[in-house]
Amino acid sequence: MIDDLTGEQPSVSGLPQTRRTFLARSSVLSLAIPGVGAALAACSPSESSKRDTTGARAAAGVDSESQQTGARPLNADSRLDTGVMKPEHHTGTSATGTATAGAANVAYRRWAPELPALPAGRTQRIHFHAHEAPIRIDDGTVVAAWTFEGDVPGPIVHTRVGDTVEFTLTNDAEIPHSMDFHAAQINPKEAFKSVVKGQSHTFTFTPKYAGAFLYHCGTAPVLMHIGAGMFGAIIVSPRDALRPAKDFVLVQNEFYLAGAANGTRASDYQKMLNMVPDIVAFNARPNQYVKDPIRVKVGDRVRFWVVSAGPSHPCNFHVVGEQFDTVYLGSLPDNAIRGVQTFTVPPGGGIVYELVCDVPGEFPFVNHGFGHGQKGAIGMLVVEP
Amino acid sequence: MIDDLTGEQPSVSGLPQTRRTFLARSSVLSLAIPGVGAALAACSPSESSKRDTTGARAAAGVDSESQQTGARPLNADSRLDTGVMKPEHHTGTSATGTATAGAANVAYRRWAPELPALPAGRTQRIHFHAHEAPIRIDDGTVVAAWTFEGDVPGPIVHTRVGDTVEFTLTNDAEIPHSMDFHAAQINPKEAFKSVVKGQSHTFTFTPKYAGAFLYHCGTAPVLMHIGAGMFGAIIVSPRDALRPAKDFVLVQNEFYLAGAANGTRASDYQKMLNMVPDIVAFNARPNQYVKDPIRVKVGDRVRFWVVSAGPSHPCNFHVVGEQFDTVYLGSLPDNAIRGVQTFTVPPGGGIVYELVCDVPGEFPFVNHGFGHGQKGAIGMLVVEP
Amino acid sequence: MIDDLTGEQPSVSGLPQTRRTFLARSSVLSLAIPGVGAALAACSPSESSKRDTTGARAAAGVDSESQQTGARPLNADSRLDTGVMKPEHHTGTSATGTATAGAANVAYRRWAPELPALPAGRTQRIHFHAHEAPIRIDDGTVVAAWTFEGDVPGPIVHTRVGDTVEFTLTNDAEIPHSMDFHAAQINPKEAFKSVVKGQSHTFTFTPKYAGAFLYHCGTAPVLMHIGAGMFGAIIVSPRDALRPAKDFVLVQNEFYLAGAANGTRASDYQKMLNMVPDIVAFNARPNQYVKDPIRVKVGDRVRFWVVSAGPSHPCNFHVVGEQFDTVYLGSLPDNAIRGVQTFTVPPGGGIVYELVCDVPGEFPFVNHGFGHGQKGAIGMLVVEP
Repeated sequence: MIDDLTGEQPSVSGLPQTRRTFLARSSVLSLAIPGVGAALAACSPSESSKRDTTGARAAAGVDSESQQTGARPLNADSRLDTGVMKPEHHTGTSATGTATAGAANVAYRRWAPELPALPAGRTQRIHFHAHEAPIRIDDGTVVAAWTFEGDVPGPIVHTRVGDTVEFTLTNDAEIPHSMDFHAAQINPKEAFKSVVKGQSHTFTFTPKYAGAFLYHCGTAPVLMHIGAGMFGAIIVSPRDALRPAKDFVLVQNEFYLAGAANGTRASDYQKMLNMVPDIVAFNARPNQYVKDPIRVKVGDRVRFWVVSAGPSHPCNFHVVGEQFDTVYLGSLPDNAIRGVQTFTVPPGGGIVYELVCDVPGEFPFVNHGFGHGQKGAIGMLVVEP
Repeated sequence: MIDDLTGEQPSVSGLPQTRRTFLARSSVLSLAIPGVGAALAACSPSESSKRDTTGARAAAGVDSESQQTGARPLNADSRLDTGVMKPEHHTGTSATGTATAGAANVAYRRWAPELPALPAGRTQRIHFHAHEAPIRIDDGTVVAAWTFEGDVPGPIVHTRVGDTVEFTLTNDAEIPHSMDFHAAQINPKEAFKSVVKGQSHTFTFTPKYAGAFLYHCGTAPVLMHIGAGMFGAIIVSPRDALRPAKDFVLVQNEFYLAGAANGTRASDYQKMLNMVPDIVAFNARPNQYVKDPIRVKVGDRVRFWVVSAGPSHPCNFHVVGEQFDTVYLGSLPDNAIRGVQTFTVPPGGGIVYELVCDVPGEFPFVNHGFGHGQKGAIGMLVVEP
Repeated sequence: MIDDLTGEQPSVSGLPQTRRTFLARSSVLSLAIPGVGAALAACSPSESSKRDTTGARAAAGVDSESQQTGARPLNADSRLDTGVMKPEHHTGTSATGTATAGAANVAYRRWAPELPALPAGRTQRIHFHAHEAPIRIDDGTVVAAWTFEGDVPGPIVHTRVGDTVEFTLTNDAEIPHSMDFHAAQINPKEAFKSVVKGQSHTFTFTPKYAGAFLYHCGTAPVLMHIGAGMFGAIIVSPRDALRPAKDFVLVQNEFYLAGAANGTRASDYQKMLNMVPDIVAFNARPNQYVKDPIRVKVGDRVRFWVVSAGPSHPCNFHVVGEQFDTVYLGSLPDNAIRGVQTFTVPPGGGIVYELVCDVPGEFPFVNHGFGHGQKGAIGMLVVEP
């Protein structure tokens, strides 16, 4: 994220000389001059691009030890990629490219919260495509989203401390995008650099710590790219298996939406700056697990891997009628506290919660900051006899 | 809270068929259609009600091993209780029923923060009444409140790990209410269900963990019911006595108030959704412990059991001129950190803080998020020689 | 802070009789009557003042075991000092005294984040002057600031558990100011009392706990005095040296700014109450370390002492491409958690973060609450080969 802050670039019609100066100014400018901040949301690819030296993979979706092409397509010189703004992109909304295409026909789908099994082998190859797509988050609401793999959140990535993840991003979208894995310790200037339309970029990392980590697009302005839907969870299990549990992944995010147009509501950068969300949700559909609950059995241990994508607010996670016997503040299975009603996931952070379902019943899980919870960050855990 | 999300109900003039669908939609609707969210604040009792199978108690207030009647009055079928809205209740404010009755004559009372002694015996019977009442929170401000036992916060409940609490709620208010104890591990669908006017409901629980826990009305929309005053603290001591200390209970809450009418200011649901409070207070009276401080002696250990009722914001608790030698993040007496200037209580959470009063003086305690603190979340600890 | 809440004072044209009543009312009044709250920002010195019994020192700036005068100038009776408001000060902005003087000629200076070495000896004498000054925080923005020592933040103070700090505040500003060190355990009524123009006040303390602590002006309304720039960091090292690291101090704050006048933008009290900042920055210059990064070498351990001055918001601190191997929630070197992507510094609090720079690169550090981060709370850590 915030890649390429240091590079020089040609001056374009009064724009600052360097990317670093540009970035530094842009966020302040956006406050002084209404509408200018919004313009940062959409940027053209740079005129000059160069070969990606790290290579690109053609594997589609998430798979393990999978196929790989020898193709090495051009990649953006990310020093430039967000520094040149085209007027036609100065909309300040996410209604770009294909984000509103066919919105009327988009079906609602519940987002499956189950943690997928660890892949076989010690190396996992993942290929995500960035593209714009309308997402139906509720019966009455389709958002013009920027996505990884056509959904919000992007796919759950599950790996393990010490394993290797080889990740490729291909950008199918109009504007540059990138990938920032919070589970990676790596030079972001290179690994998390922006990729322009039609190009790909690959990097490899090995997670050091276990936990629930955010991933997100880190292309400037990050507020807009997260806010428009480019985020997900990478779950890192420790090398030694945790005690048995039913594992669920919940990514909280906020939606800041403009009025409907073309059957969709676009994310609105100015509203993001004001920080009063319209909708707050787990896995991007308000109240989806009230409508179609998460189900476990009496006696089950439940482990919630909770990430707050933000872009701005924490998740004060609480389960009604339950208490967490364990909350992991840092790398699992250490760094735990016991006997907790509510603990806060910071925006850009992740916390892991465990409870044991002693009795059957219906247990709502909520963001107990109810100004947020009431906007859709409520779900239901049903414990069946 | 959020009880009875699963039941079917008859369609009423275009309302959703099921409670679950209704709830899921309501929070989003409230954003799309100004004023509709507010309407959720007041709901009629259901037409169909049935006998409470858990029984009801007539003991008034908080007492231990106290009297109990054999009466088993009708109780609401809480599957329906908030799903049917009457137009006359669509005000979006807390100025319902008796909430503004006799406001001019309501006296200001300081709210006693001292932790009451543990009751004798291992079982405690508590009977709360829900009702609307005007509360004078400041010389110039009377709020139209929804309350437990006629005050905000409701009474402090003090119990112990492994003891039994038998709780009865009788609803004297116009709209349905319920009780959610964060110290209970229990099926909320049954225990925390809504109770309609004139009826009672009883449930029993045994706390597993020590700490400062929130209780609150969990009837939808929870944001409104907490925001209008239906909250308090349940303090759970560990089985082995903690080191000697002066124990005080502080419940922070936010008020979101409409203009004065009938001598009161009602809580305003739309302002709650916007999340910029008018007043933030400890124990619901802004700056009350500045006016009439908490007093201890030099050498005393002071233990603050701090709960944030919200409905939306944390409490960044700090004592000026002091440092906490111990802050318990989880169940006491473990899960502690040492040497802390400020630590945050999440909304819907509780944290316990200890300090030793080495020197005499006047030590303000504050929410150090001063946009909140300055609105009334300031008190004074006087350490007398 | 909030000093002298108990004293009686003469009634002045309808003002409350006592300081305590005044304070308690003022924050609520400020909400009911727009503009009145703002008036609290500027207050005249009291008519009655008396000799400072603790003495005053003439040493300029921060030095150790330094010179000291025998002068004992008059000091305010702080019971009165903020209770009497002069109409000409009722501006609600920080554009007082010399805060806008010569703004056009004020140069931008990067604020050095390096932790200064511990002074020699076990006693450190520090002398700060409070005064108003224009500060250029960005190429295009000069703020009318209230400062310690003419800069925002004030100077970094570095001391050690068990050492002695003898601190003197001299007030050169029009309105009363004071000093509240979060690292001190001391009677704030005396030590942190307000000082009127031309007078000095000295107090002495011995830190008990290691950590990153806030200092700030505690004169009412604190929200205004912090918001206008009167804050800084006092870093307390443990007695036994920590493991070797490159130590940096980052103080996050929010700016709430009125439109430009006299070449400056003044802090606006009403905007502070609304809590949507215009700018959020590390060490008071938005994006300054993007423009001119913090530089270390591969293999270095980096220790960030992060303080959130607020006045209202936390800092969700994260380093892109890195993970903290250690985060100290309480006194160092204990109270740590391991393997953390993001942890939150509460407003009025401090958290210490460590990471090891395994690879060269450019690692942005951010407030990952991006509605804040995007307003300037982004910097760059460059790890050189």
